[in-house]
Amino acid sequence: MSEPCIICVAITGSVPQKSDNPAVPITVSEQIESTQAAFEAGASIAHCHVREEDGTPTSDPERFARLVEGLKTHCPGMIIQLSTGGRSGAGKTRGGMLSLAPDMASLSVGSNNFPTRVYENPPDLVDWLASEMRSYEVKPEIEAFDLSHIFQAVALNRDGRIPGKLYVQFVMGVKNAMPADREVFDFYIRTLKRLAPEASWCAAGVGRHQLEVNEWCIAAGGHTRT
Amino acid sequence: MSEPCIICVAITGSVPQKSDNPAVPITVSEQIESTQAAFEAGASIAHCHVREEDGTPTSDPERFARLVEGLKTHCPGMIIQLSTGGRSGAGKTRGGMLSLAPDMASLSVGSNNFPTRVYENPPDLVDWLASEMRSYEVKPEIEAFDLSHIFQAVALNRDGRIPGKLYVQFVMGVKNAMPADREVFDFYIRTLKRLAPEASWCAAGVGRHQLEVNEWCIAAGGHTRT
Ligand SMILES: [Zn+2]
Ligand SMILES: [Zn+2]
Ligand SMILES: [Zn+2]
Ligand SMILES: [Zn+2]
Repeated sequence: MSEPCIICVAITGSVPQKSDNPAVPITVSEQIESTQAAFEAGASIAHCHVREEDGTPTSDPERFARLVEGLKTHCPGMIIQLSTGGRSGAGKTRGGMLSLAPDMASLSVGSNNFPTRVYENPPDLVDWLASEMRSYEVKPEIEAFDLSHIFQAVALNRDGRIPGKLYVQFVMGVKNAMPADREVFDFYIRTLKRLAPEASWCAAGVGRHQLEVNEWCIAAGGHTRT
Repeated sequence: MSEPCIICVAITGSVPQKSDNPAVPITVSEQIESTQAAFEAGASIAHCHVREEDGTPTSDPERFARLVEGLKTHCPGMIIQLSTGGRSGAGKTRGGMLSLAPDMASLSVGSNNFPTRVYENPPDLVDWLASEMRSYEVKPEIEAFDLSHIFQAVALNRDGRIPGKLYVQFVMGVKNAMPADREVFDFYIRTLKRLAPEASWCAAGVGRHQLEVNEWCIAAGGHTRT
Protein backbone atom coordinates (compact mmCIF):
# COMPACT_ATOMS: atom_id res chain seq x y z
CA MET A 1 0.00 0.00 0.00
CA SER A 2 1.17 3.52 -0.70
CA GLU A 3 -0.76 5.00 2.22
CA PRO A 4 1.21 4.71 5.44
CA CYS A 5 -0.32 2.47 8.06
CA ILE A 6 -1.67 4.66 10.84
CA ILE A 7 -1.10 3.13 14.23
CA CYS A 8 -3.59 4.35 16.77
CA VAL A 9 -2.56 3.78 20.38
CA ALA A 10 -5.11 3.58 23.19
CA ILE A 11 -2.90 3.90 26.19
CA THR A 12 -5.40 3.34 28.97
CA GLY A 13 -8.99 2.82 27.91
CA SER A 14 -11.71 3.25 30.46
CA VAL A 15 -12.01 -0.25 31.85
CA PRO A 16 -8.67 -1.67 33.10
CA GLN A 17 -7.63 -0.75 36.64
CA LYS A 18 -4.24 -0.97 38.35
CA SER A 19 -5.68 -3.94 40.23
CA ASP A 20 -6.01 -5.80 36.90
CA ASN A 21 -2.57 -4.89 35.64
CA PRO A 22 -0.13 -2.74 37.63
CA ALA A 23 1.50 -1.58 34.38
CA VAL A 24 -1.64 0.28 33.19
CA PRO A 25 -0.80 3.99 33.12
CA ILE A 26 -3.42 5.84 35.14
CA THR A 27 -2.09 9.25 36.07
CA VAL A 28 -1.66 11.91 33.43
CA SER A 29 2.13 11.81 33.72
CA GLU A 30 2.17 8.01 33.39
CA GLN A 31 -0.05 8.35 30.30
CA ILE A 32 2.23 10.94 28.71
CA GLU A 33 5.25 8.74 29.36
CA SER A 34 3.76 5.63 27.80
CA THR A 35 2.26 7.54 24.85
CA GLN A 36 5.67 9.03 24.14
CA ALA A 37 7.15 5.52 24.04
CA ALA A 38 4.45 4.46 21.55
CA PHE A 39 4.93 7.64 19.51
CA GLU A 40 8.67 7.00 19.25
CA ALA A 41 7.87 3.44 18.17
CA GLY A 42 5.72 4.82 15.31
CA ALA A 43 2.19 5.36 16.61
CA SER A 44 0.55 8.38 15.01
CA ILE A 45 -2.79 8.72 16.83
CA ALA A 46 -3.24 8.75 20.60
CA HIS A 47 -6.76 7.72 21.65
CA CYS A 48 -7.12 9.20 25.15
CA HIS A 49 -9.21 8.52 28.22
CA VAL A 50 -8.55 10.11 31.60
CA ARG A 51 -8.99 8.88 35.16
CA GLU A 52 -9.61 10.31 38.60
CA GLU A 53 -6.87 9.86 41.23
CA ASP A 54 -8.56 6.67 42.41
CA GLY A 55 -8.55 5.26 38.88
CA THR A 56 -12.24 5.72 38.03
CA PRO A 57 -12.91 6.95 34.48
CA THR A 58 -13.89 10.61 34.11
CA SER A 59 -14.58 13.15 31.38
CA ASP A 60 -13.05 16.01 33.43
CA PRO A 61 -11.95 18.68 30.92
CA GLU A 62 -9.21 19.91 33.28
CA ARG A 63 -7.53 16.50 33.29
CA PHE A 64 -7.88 16.22 29.51
CA ALA A 65 -6.30 19.68 29.22
CA ARG A 66 -3.22 18.57 31.18
CA LEU A 67 -2.93 15.43 29.08
CA VAL A 68 -3.23 17.34 25.78
CA GLU A 69 -0.65 19.88 27.00
CA GLY A 70 1.83 17.13 27.88
CA LEU A 71 1.27 15.21 24.64
CA LYS A 72 1.82 18.34 22.54
CA THR A 73 5.18 18.84 24.28
CA HIS A 74 6.38 15.24 24.31
CA CYS A 75 4.82 13.88 21.10
CA PRO A 76 4.97 16.77 18.62
CA GLY A 77 2.88 16.05 15.54
CA MET A 78 1.02 13.16 17.08
CA ILE A 79 -2.74 13.24 16.38
CA ILE A 80 -4.60 13.62 19.65
CA GLN A 81 -7.99 11.96 19.88
CA LEU A 82 -10.06 12.40 23.04
CA SER A 83 -12.73 9.93 24.06
CA THR A 84 -16.32 11.09 24.44
CA GLY A 85 -17.28 7.51 25.30
CA GLY A 86 -19.97 6.79 27.83
CA ARG A 87 -17.90 4.79 30.28
CA SER A 88 -16.49 8.06 31.63
CA GLY A 89 -19.62 10.15 32.14
CA ALA A 90 -23.22 10.64 31.10
CA GLY A 91 -25.03 13.09 28.82
CA LYS A 92 -23.34 16.31 27.84
CA THR A 93 -20.52 15.92 30.39
CA ARG A 94 -19.14 13.45 27.84
CA GLY A 95 -18.36 16.35 25.48
CA GLY A 96 -17.07 18.90 27.97
CA MET A 97 -13.50 18.52 26.70
CA LEU A 98 -14.33 19.26 23.05
CA SER A 99 -13.70 22.98 23.64
CA LEU A 100 -10.02 22.00 23.96
CA ALA A 101 -10.28 21.56 20.18
CA PRO A 102 -8.30 18.30 19.96
CA ASP A 103 -7.47 17.00 16.46
CA MET A 104 -10.03 14.23 16.85
CA ALA A 105 -12.60 12.86 19.25
CA SER A 106 -14.44 9.57 19.35
CA LEU A 107 -18.16 9.70 18.53
CA SER A 108 -20.65 6.90 19.07
CA VAL A 109 -23.68 7.30 16.82
CA GLY A 110 -25.91 4.50 18.05
CA SER A 111 -26.69 2.51 21.17
CA ASN A 112 -25.85 -1.08 22.03
CA ASN A 113 -25.36 -3.37 24.98
CA PHE A 114 -22.14 -3.57 26.98
CA PRO A 115 -21.24 -6.45 29.32
CA THR A 116 -23.59 -5.38 32.13
CA ARG A 117 -25.53 -2.37 30.85
CA VAL A 118 -26.82 -0.35 27.91
CA TYR A 119 -24.30 1.94 26.22
CA GLU A 120 -26.68 4.87 25.78
CA ASN A 121 -26.19 7.25 22.88
CA PRO A 122 -29.60 8.79 22.35
CA PRO A 123 -30.12 10.65 19.05
CA ASP A 124 -30.19 14.11 20.64
CA LEU A 125 -26.90 13.52 22.46
CA VAL A 126 -25.26 12.28 19.24
CA ASP A 127 -26.48 15.42 17.46
CA TRP A 128 -25.15 17.65 20.22
CA LEU A 129 -21.73 15.97 20.30
CA ALA A 130 -21.51 16.21 16.50
CA SER A 131 -22.43 19.91 16.61
CA GLU A 132 -19.77 20.60 19.26
CA MET A 133 -17.23 18.82 17.04
CA ARG A 134 -18.23 21.02 14.11
CA SER A 135 -17.95 24.16 16.28
CA TYR A 136 -14.44 23.31 17.45
CA GLU A 137 -13.38 21.70 14.17
CA VAL A 138 -12.74 18.35 15.80
CA LYS A 139 -12.62 15.37 13.43
CA PRO A 140 -14.84 12.57 14.74
CA GLU A 141 -13.74 8.96 14.82
CA ILE A 142 -17.03 7.08 14.60
CA GLU A 143 -17.12 4.13 16.99
CA ALA A 144 -19.11 1.41 15.25
CA PHE A 145 -20.16 -1.23 17.77
CA ASP A 146 -22.74 -2.65 15.36
CA LEU A 147 -23.63 -2.59 11.68
CA SER A 148 -26.38 0.03 11.88
CA HIS A 149 -23.84 2.48 13.31
CA ILE A 150 -22.12 2.53 9.90
CA PHE A 151 -25.42 3.42 8.23
CA GLN A 152 -26.04 6.08 10.87
CA ALA A 153 -22.58 7.62 10.35
CA VAL A 154 -23.23 7.78 6.61
CA ALA A 155 -26.62 9.45 7.19
CA LEU A 156 -24.98 12.07 9.46
CA ASN A 157 -22.28 12.61 6.86
CA ARG A 158 -24.75 13.01 4.00
CA ASP A 159 -26.84 15.63 5.78
CA GLY A 160 -23.80 17.59 6.93
CA ARG A 161 -23.92 16.83 10.63
CA ILE A 162 -20.53 15.14 10.17
CA PRO A 163 -18.73 17.14 7.47
CA GLY A 164 -15.80 15.89 5.37
CA LYS A 165 -14.60 12.33 4.90
CA LEU A 166 -15.82 9.81 7.41
CA TYR A 167 -13.37 8.04 9.67
CA VAL A 168 -14.87 4.94 11.24
CA GLN A 169 -13.51 2.52 13.80
CA PHE A 170 -15.05 -0.94 13.97
CA VAL A 171 -15.07 -2.13 17.57
CA MET A 172 -15.28 -5.89 18.04
CA GLY A 173 -15.12 -8.28 20.95
CA VAL A 174 -17.08 -6.36 23.60
CA LYS A 175 -19.35 -8.81 25.43
CA ASN A 176 -23.04 -8.37 24.45
CA ALA A 177 -22.07 -6.12 21.51
CA MET A 178 -20.49 -7.31 18.22
CA PRO A 179 -18.07 -10.22 18.65
CA ALA A 180 -14.80 -10.45 16.71
CA ASP A 181 -16.10 -12.20 13.59
CA ARG A 182 -14.11 -12.21 10.37
CA GLU A 183 -17.11 -12.28 8.04
CA VAL A 184 -18.69 -9.34 9.81
CA PHE A 185 -15.38 -7.48 9.64
CA ASP A 186 -15.28 -8.01 5.85
CA PHE A 187 -18.93 -6.98 5.52
CA TYR A 188 -18.27 -3.83 7.56
CA ILE A 189 -15.55 -2.81 5.12
CA ARG A 190 -17.67 -3.71 2.09
CA THR A 191 -20.65 -1.76 3.45
CA LEU A 192 -18.61 1.32 4.29
CA LYS A 193 -17.01 1.30 0.81
CA ARG A 194 -20.41 0.92 -0.82
CA LEU A 195 -22.06 3.74 1.12
CA ALA A 196 -19.11 6.14 1.53
CA PRO A 197 -16.30 5.28 -0.90
CA GLU A 198 -14.11 8.13 0.45
CA ALA A 199 -14.25 6.96 4.05
CA SER A 200 -11.30 5.62 6.04
CA TRP A 201 -11.60 2.97 8.69
CA CYS A 202 -9.70 1.32 11.46
CA ALA A 203 -10.62 -1.51 13.78
CA ALA A 204 -10.13 -2.37 17.42
CA GLY A 205 -10.43 -5.79 18.95
CA VAL A 206 -11.11 -5.57 22.64
CA GLY A 207 -9.22 -7.62 25.22
CA ARG A 208 -8.15 -11.02 23.95
CA HIS A 209 -9.34 -10.15 20.43
CA GLN A 210 -6.90 -7.29 20.00
CA LEU A 211 -4.16 -9.11 18.10
CA GLU A 212 -6.55 -11.04 15.89
CA VAL A 213 -8.44 -7.93 14.78
CA ASN A 214 -5.14 -6.07 14.22
CA GLU A 215 -4.03 -8.82 11.88
CA TRP A 216 -7.28 -8.64 9.87
CA CYS A 217 -6.90 -4.89 9.83
CA ILE A 218 -3.37 -4.87 8.44
CA ALA A 219 -4.25 -7.54 5.88
CA ALA A 220 -7.24 -5.48 4.70
CA GLY A 221 -5.32 -2.21 4.56
CA GLY A 222 -6.96 -0.42 7.46
CA HIS A 223 -5.38 1.31 10.40
CA THR A 224 -4.86 -0.55 13.62
CA ARG A 225 -5.25 0.32 17.24
CA THR A 226 -2.96 -1.22 19.83
CA MET B 1 -40.91 -24.48 -1.12
CA SER B 2 -42.56 -27.36 0.69
CA GLU B 3 -42.76 -25.41 3.97
CA PRO B 4 -45.92 -23.30 4.06
CA CYS B 5 -45.37 -19.57 4.12
CA ILE B 6 -46.25 -18.30 7.58
CA ILE B 7 -47.99 -14.97 7.48
CA CYS B 8 -47.55 -13.02 10.68
CA VAL B 9 -50.03 -10.21 11.19
CA ALA B 10 -49.29 -7.25 13.46
CA ILE B 11 -52.69 -5.72 13.84
CA THR B 12 -51.89 -2.60 15.75
CA GLY B 13 -48.24 -2.11 16.70
CA SER B 14 -47.40 0.36 19.43
CA VAL B 15 -46.90 3.55 17.43
CA PRO B 16 -49.90 4.42 15.21
CA GLN B 17 -52.78 6.29 16.82
CA LYS B 18 -56.35 6.81 15.66
CA SER B 19 -55.32 10.36 14.85
CA ASP B 20 -52.87 8.97 12.23
CA ASN B 21 -55.32 6.53 10.72
CA PRO B 22 -58.91 6.16 11.96
CA ALA B 23 -58.93 2.54 10.71
CA VAL B 24 -56.27 1.40 13.20
CA PRO B 25 -57.92 -1.05 15.60
CA ILE B 26 -57.27 0.17 19.14
CA THR B 27 -59.75 -1.47 21.49
CA VAL B 28 -59.52 -5.16 22.26
CA SER B 29 -62.75 -5.90 20.40
CA GLU B 30 -61.57 -3.97 17.33
CA GLN B 31 -58.30 -5.94 17.46
CA ILE B 32 -60.08 -9.27 17.68
CA GLU B 33 -62.30 -8.33 14.75
CA SER B 34 -59.45 -7.31 12.45
CA THR B 35 -57.27 -10.28 13.49
CA GLN B 36 -60.12 -12.61 12.65
CA ALA B 37 -60.33 -11.07 9.18
CA ALA B 38 -56.57 -11.62 8.69
CA PHE B 39 -56.83 -15.17 10.07
CA GLU B 40 -59.62 -16.00 7.63
CA ALA B 41 -57.44 -14.56 4.86
CA GLY B 42 -54.61 -16.96 5.82
CA ALA B 43 -52.48 -15.31 8.50
CA SER B 44 -51.14 -17.84 10.98
CA ILE B 45 -49.42 -15.74 13.65
CA ALA B 46 -50.94 -12.74 15.42
CA HIS B 47 -48.29 -10.37 16.82
CA CYS B 48 -50.14 -8.45 19.52
CA HIS B 49 -49.78 -5.14 21.30
CA VAL B 50 -52.46 -3.65 23.56
CA ARG B 51 -53.50 -0.07 24.30
CA GLU B 52 -55.08 1.91 27.09
CA GLU B 53 -58.53 3.45 26.47
CA ASP B 54 -56.85 6.66 25.31
CA GLY B 55 -54.73 4.75 22.79
CA THR B 56 -51.37 4.83 24.63
CA PRO B 57 -49.41 1.58 24.47
CA THR B 58 -49.41 -0.54 27.61
CA SER B 59 -48.17 -3.93 28.80
CA ASP B 60 -51.21 -4.44 31.06
CA PRO B 61 -51.61 -8.23 31.55
CA GLU B 62 -55.36 -7.87 32.08
CA ARG B 63 -55.83 -6.33 28.64
CA PHE B 64 -53.59 -8.97 27.08
CA ALA B 65 -55.69 -11.64 28.83
CA ARG B 66 -58.89 -10.33 27.23
CA LEU B 67 -57.24 -10.20 23.81
CA VAL B 68 -55.86 -13.76 24.12
CA GLU B 69 -59.28 -14.99 25.26
CA GLY B 70 -61.02 -13.40 22.27
CA LEU B 71 -58.42 -14.62 19.76
CA LYS B 72 -58.69 -18.19 21.05
CA THR B 73 -62.45 -18.05 20.48
CA HIS B 74 -62.48 -16.27 17.13
CA CYS B 75 -59.22 -17.53 15.54
CA PRO B 76 -58.92 -21.15 16.71
CA GLY B 77 -55.44 -22.53 15.94
CA MET B 78 -53.89 -19.15 15.27
CA ILE B 79 -50.47 -18.73 16.92
CA ILE B 80 -50.67 -15.93 19.46
CA GLN B 81 -47.54 -13.87 19.97
CA LEU B 82 -47.54 -11.14 22.62
CA SER B 83 -45.18 -8.19 22.45
CA THR B 84 -42.71 -7.60 25.29
CA GLY B 85 -41.37 -4.59 23.36
CA GLY B 86 -40.22 -1.49 25.19
CA ARG B 87 -42.61 0.99 23.62
CA SER B 88 -45.34 -0.25 25.95
CA GLY B 89 -43.57 -0.22 29.31
CA ALA B 90 -40.22 -0.32 31.07
CA GLY B 91 -38.27 -3.00 32.89
CA LYS B 92 -40.04 -6.10 34.16
CA THR B 93 -43.54 -4.69 33.48
CA ARG B 94 -42.73 -5.59 29.87
CA GLY B 95 -42.95 -9.29 30.75
CA GLY B 96 -45.97 -9.22 33.07
CA MET B 97 -48.17 -10.93 30.49
CA LEU B 98 -45.88 -13.94 30.01
CA SER B 99 -47.70 -15.81 32.78
CA LEU B 100 -50.63 -16.00 30.33
CA ALA B 101 -48.41 -18.58 28.59
CA PRO B 102 -49.06 -17.41 25.02
CA ASP B 103 -47.65 -19.55 22.20
CA MET B 104 -44.96 -16.96 21.50
CA ALA B 105 -43.67 -13.60 22.68
CA SER B 106 -41.32 -11.12 21.13
CA LEU B 107 -37.87 -10.82 22.74
CA SER B 108 -35.32 -8.11 22.05
CA VAL B 109 -31.82 -9.24 22.97
CA GLY B 110 -29.83 -6.05 22.44
CA SER B 111 -30.21 -2.30 22.54
CA ASN B 112 -30.36 0.25 19.72
CA ASN B 113 -31.60 3.69 18.91
CA PHE B 114 -35.19 4.47 17.96
CA PRO B 115 -36.32 7.70 16.25
CA THR B 116 -36.06 9.85 19.39
CA ARG B 117 -34.64 7.64 22.13
CA VAL B 118 -32.68 4.58 23.14
CA TYR B 119 -34.53 1.27 22.97
CA GLU B 120 -33.16 -0.14 26.21
CA ASN B 121 -32.77 -3.87 26.61
CA PRO B 122 -30.12 -4.24 29.29
CA PRO B 123 -28.54 -7.71 29.62
CA ASP B 124 -30.20 -8.48 32.96
CA LEU B 125 -33.68 -7.65 31.61
CA VAL B 126 -33.07 -9.84 28.54
CA ASP B 127 -32.04 -12.68 30.85
CA TRP B 128 -35.12 -12.23 33.01
CA LEU B 129 -37.53 -12.13 30.04
CA ALA B 130 -35.86 -15.24 28.59
CA SER B 131 -36.17 -17.05 31.92
CA GLU B 132 -39.87 -16.15 32.20
CA MET B 133 -40.37 -17.50 28.67
CA ARG B 134 -38.67 -20.74 29.68
CA SER B 135 -40.84 -20.99 32.82
CA TYR B 136 -44.09 -20.55 30.92
CA GLU B 137 -42.89 -22.44 27.81
CA VAL B 138 -43.34 -19.42 25.58
CA LYS B 139 -41.43 -19.55 22.27
CA PRO B 140 -39.51 -16.30 21.77
CA GLU B 141 -39.46 -14.45 18.48
CA ILE B 142 -36.13 -12.62 18.57
CA GLU B 143 -36.46 -9.04 17.32
CA ALA B 144 -33.18 -8.27 15.52
CA PHE B 145 -32.87 -4.52 15.05
CA ASP B 146 -29.17 -4.83 14.27
CA LEU B 147 -26.60 -7.46 13.26
CA SER B 148 -25.16 -8.06 16.73
CA HIS B 149 -28.62 -9.08 17.91
CA ILE B 150 -28.36 -12.20 15.72
CA PHE B 151 -25.05 -13.09 17.38
CA GLN B 152 -26.58 -12.46 20.79
CA ALA B 153 -29.58 -14.67 20.03
CA VAL B 154 -27.23 -17.47 18.96
CA ALA B 155 -25.19 -17.06 22.17
CA LEU B 156 -28.37 -17.28 24.29
CA ASN B 157 -29.45 -20.33 22.31
CA ARG B 158 -26.10 -22.10 22.69
CA ASP B 159 -25.96 -21.67 26.46
CA GLY B 160 -29.58 -22.77 26.91
CA ARG B 161 -31.14 -19.44 27.88
CA ILE B 162 -33.23 -19.75 24.71
CA PRO B 163 -33.92 -23.46 24.25
CA GLY B 164 -34.93 -25.15 21.00
CA LYS B 165 -34.72 -23.79 17.51
CA LEU B 166 -34.28 -20.04 17.16
CA TYR B 167 -36.96 -17.96 15.50
CA VAL B 168 -35.65 -14.54 14.51
CA GLN B 169 -37.40 -11.55 13.00
CA PHE B 170 -35.26 -8.96 11.20
CA VAL B 171 -36.73 -5.51 11.74
CA MET B 172 -35.75 -2.92 9.15
CA GLY B 173 -36.68 0.67 8.42
CA VAL B 174 -36.92 2.11 11.94
CA LYS B 175 -35.27 5.55 11.93
CA ASN B 176 -31.89 5.54 13.72
CA ALA B 177 -31.83 1.73 13.77
CA MET B 178 -31.18 -0.53 10.73
CA PRO B 179 -32.60 0.82 7.46
CA ALA B 180 -34.26 -1.41 4.87
CA ASP B 181 -31.15 -2.44 2.92
CA ARG B 182 -31.18 -5.45 0.63
CA GLU B 183 -27.53 -6.38 1.13
CA VAL B 184 -27.92 -6.30 4.88
CA PHE B 185 -31.06 -8.40 4.58
CA ASP B 186 -29.12 -11.02 2.61
CA PHE B 187 -26.21 -10.87 5.07
CA TYR B 188 -28.63 -11.34 7.99
CA ILE B 189 -29.94 -14.53 6.42
CA ARG B 190 -26.44 -15.76 5.57
CA THR B 191 -25.19 -15.05 9.09
CA LEU B 192 -28.13 -16.75 10.78
CA LYS B 193 -27.71 -19.83 8.56
CA ARG B 194 -23.98 -19.94 9.29
CA LEU B 195 -24.36 -19.63 13.07
CA ALA B 196 -27.64 -21.51 13.61
CA PRO B 197 -28.51 -23.65 10.58
CA GLU B 198 -31.74 -24.87 12.20
CA ALA B 199 -33.13 -21.40 12.84
CA SER B 200 -36.19 -19.90 11.15
CA TRP B 201 -36.55 -16.24 10.34
CA CYS B 202 -39.04 -13.67 9.23
CA ALA B 203 -38.68 -9.99 8.47
CA ALA B 204 -40.64 -6.83 9.04
CA GLY B 205 -40.23 -3.58 7.18
CA VAL B 206 -41.57 -0.70 9.17
CA GLY B 207 -43.84 1.97 7.71
CA ARG B 208 -43.18 2.68 4.06
CA HIS B 209 -40.68 -0.21 3.89
CA GLN B 210 -43.25 -2.85 4.70
CA LEU B 211 -44.07 -4.00 1.17
CA GLU B 212 -40.47 -3.94 -0.01
CA VAL B 213 -39.21 -6.08 2.88
CA ASN B 214 -42.15 -8.48 2.43
CA GLU B 215 -41.15 -8.99 -1.18
CA TRP B 216 -37.52 -9.75 -0.25
CA CYS B 217 -38.84 -12.06 2.43
CA ILE B 218 -41.08 -14.09 0.13
CA ALA B 219 -38.32 -14.28 -2.51
CA ALA B 220 -35.83 -15.57 0.08
CA GLY B 221 -38.23 -18.10 1.57
CA GLY B 222 -38.83 -16.49 4.94
CA HIS B 223 -42.05 -15.64 6.65
CA THR B 224 -43.58 -12.23 6.29
CA ARG B 225 -45.31 -9.85 8.61
CA THR B 226 -48.06 -7.57 7.36
ZN1 LIG C 1 -8.36 4.43 15.48
ZN1 LIG D 1 -11.89 4.64 24.01
ZN1 LIG E 1 -42.99 -12.71 12.60
ZN1 LIG F 1 -44.43 -5.36 18.00
